[in-house]
Amino acid sequence: MLVVHKYGGTSVGNLDRIENVANRVAKAKKAGSDVVVVVSAMSGETNKLVGYAEHFTSTPAKKEMDMLLSSGERVTAALLSIALQSQGVDAVAMSGRQAGIVTDNRHTYARIESIDPTAMQEAINAGKVVIVAGFQGINKDGSVTTLGRGGSDLSAVALAGALQADQCEIYSDVDGIYTTDPRIEPNAKKLDTISYDEMLELSSLGAKVLQNRSVELAKKLNVKLYAKSSFSDNEGTLIIKESNSMEEVLVSGVVLDRNQARVTLRGVSDRPGIAAEIFTKLADANINVDMIIQNVGTDGATNLGFTVPQSEHLNARKIMEGFDHDIEGMDFDEHVCKVSVVGVGMKSHSGVAATAFTTLAKSNINIEMISTSEIKVSMVINDKYGELAIRALHEAYGLDQ
Amino acid sequence: MLVVHKYGGTSVGNLDRIENVANRVAKAKKAGSDVVVVVSAMSGETNKLVGYAEHFTSTPAKKEMDMLLSSGERVTAALLSIALQSQGVDAVAMSGRQAGIVTDNRHTYARIESIDPTAMQEAINAGKVVIVAGFQGINKDGSVTTLGRGGSDLSAVALAGALQADQCEIYSDVDGIYTTDPRIEPNAKKLDTISYDEMLELSSLGAKVLQNRSVELAKKLNVKLYAKSSFSDNEGTLIIKESNSMEEVLVSGVVLDRNQARVTLRGVSDRPGIAAEIFTKLADANINVDMIIQNVGTDGATNLGFTVPQSEHLNARKIMEGFDHDIEGMDFDEHVCKVSVVGVGMKSHSGVAATAFTTLAKSNINIEMISTSEIKVSMVINDKYGELAIRALHEAYGLDQ
Repeated sequence: MLVVHKYGGTSVGNLDRIENVANRVAKAKKAGSDVVVVVSAMSGETNKLVGYAEHFTSTPAKKEMDMLLSSGERVTAALLSIALQSQGVDAVAMSGRQAGIVTDNRHTYARIESIDPTAMQEAINAGKVVIVAGFQGINKDGSVTTLGRGGSDLSAVALAGALQADQCEIYSDVDGIYTTDPRIEPNAKKLDTISYDEMLELSSLGAKVLQNRSVELAKKLNVKLYAKSSFSDNEGTLIIKESNSMEEVLVSGVVLDRNQARVTLRGVSDRPGIAAEIFTKLADANINVDMIIQNVGTDGATNLGFTVPQSEHLNARKIMEGFDHDIEGMDFDEHVCKVSVVGVGMKSHSGVAATAFTTLAKSNINIEMISTSEIKVSMVINDKYGELAIRALHEAYGLDQ
Repeated sequence: MLVVHKYGGTSVGNLDRIENVANRVAKAKKAGSDVVVVVSAMSGETNKLVGYAEHFTSTPAKKEMDMLLSSGERVTAALLSIALQSQGVDAVAMSGRQAGIVTDNRHTYARIESIDPTAMQEAINAGKVVIVAGFQGINKDGSVTTLGRGGSDLSAVALAGALQADQCEIYSDVDGIYTTDPRIEPNAKKLDTISYDEMLELSSLGAKVLQNRSVELAKKLNVKLYAKSSFSDNEGTLIIKESNSMEEVLVSGVVLDRNQARVTLRGVSDRPGIAAEIFTKLADANINVDMIIQNVGTDGATNLGFTVPQSEHLNARKIMEGFDHDIEGMDFDEHVCKVSVVGVGMKSHSGVAATAFTTLAKSNINIEMISTSEIKVSMVINDKYGELAIRALHEAYGLDQ
């Protein structure tokens, strides 16, 4: 059995915690598994280095940032290897390059192109625990690249795929995936299993346990993920392909995303090319648009609504106010949030959306926008009702049972 | 004109100092030189990382230490490149690997085997300042290696050799090489030039401006060295091959080395193999022996004296006291120091050693041991007379004029 462990910044945040991680890894190794460990930088290190760079300029070159930021994970990898060796466990630390990770050329948000697992496999065959610095690789020119924030999850999944590992265990300070945020709803329950698709919806909706790209990659490579706490021995949550037993579950979780601002364009000319022009302008300004809603128009005009992250709200507003044709009016609201209900079960069950709308209506919460996908219902509401909505929905779907 | 600059840990010790280094490099570049810069880790970083490793074990694996410690120089290289770019100077940061530095396999004290300057040369041809992380390379297996403490000097000299640079400028917090330590003798004078050989004697004697191996390499590759302060615009000291004008100079400097302890073995059997046995035992215990003095024996026995660093004195004592044959008696003295007179001029001038002995005698300082080479006279004396001896010798050779 070959398992990949991944430990995030908090799990390796100081020397005692690295020791604790070494104990976990040693235990798995002694129980008979081959283990490859992917580590993040010690928490705070990456932000410290970013701060250093920003002392000189607010726009440091991405290539230099990659060399700068990749150092943090290398430090953790070396230290964990030393900690394991001091316990008598044979181990070897590798940089992304040494682990065979080759990426494209997009510095600071590179994509993994290939992994040559030969060096790792040789070390595993020699009985060693392999410790890989996460978040990094090299491009074809040999320059260091990084995979973007949270990229260590991606490293772990990609390595698990390349090594055909039996499982990829993602350790953090959270002990799994919950039906909703326990800080909002104390009755939130930890899920034993969840599907990749549900996890994707949850993580894109703001449940930060797993980085979205890594779940996508796990789905693509069919890597079994296991999200678990490095601070306890509690069972975690298994993230796998949809199974038959899952179909009995209607809804897996409800999520609140506060980082939303709403833009509504009224009386938009209902002719080809207008929406393209609007969203191209926003994309050119690097504004991430989340929900987009457009109804069938009447009288040659329609209303078009979308949401953006709150930090990009003023920028979006400036761009839209500079748009001088084919829009009659517009309004903006940064006091909104998005509540979402996620579950593979709703694909084959009618009534899930209706339950959501009824639940909010009973709580006298007005729904400003609605967007649905096969496994998700998202609603934009006034942000002061966010927590109330989450608690009501959590109860309505019986998630606290 | 192509120059290599090397900045030590103190010169890049914080972000303002890195900015200051960027200003110096930008000035050289704007004056028309091509510039390659080699940097150390920010002062304190390497010790911090060593402390981290020692949290787990006093004997961390050298391979892991190399990955750990090499990160500090990478951070500085990236930051300096960012600082230069923010001033509008085109720059690129490279790790030791990217700069083409290949070493042997001796982790933590690797030796450079070859340098492929192609990537650096391409960047230089494209008008860029190249910033190289010092102290590191990779071995033939692709593992990161480091060159030992002070290894960034070595990186700089080796790169200067590979690039056939016109000059290699070593920046530190000291503005050149002095006739003696100015803290001991305020009349110490800065030397304009000094030969490689003299510099080698001085640095092995404890003048810490330049790492010994890097001076040796500079001599071998005929790289012109220039030792200078990064904190002032004062002229520094040029270290070159012996020139004709140098022959007029009898003595270049006098040096005090306090880190000495003396061991004297009396009545050592004067037969082959005894000295070999003694120094093999010491070498096996990793004790660095400095001076070794043995006189021609009488009556089949001789006296053998040597010095060791003070920190290794007790270890050396234990080993010698466990030596149970062919030695009649021994004594140990850790209250000694070594004063040395260095100068290429003494090769062709008699009387330099005599002046030294006379000078110490006039000051009523007893000489316990004497060792001479072509360009050096070293004397072991009681350590309370160290500073007095230095001042007397400095005056006797007219170094304050």
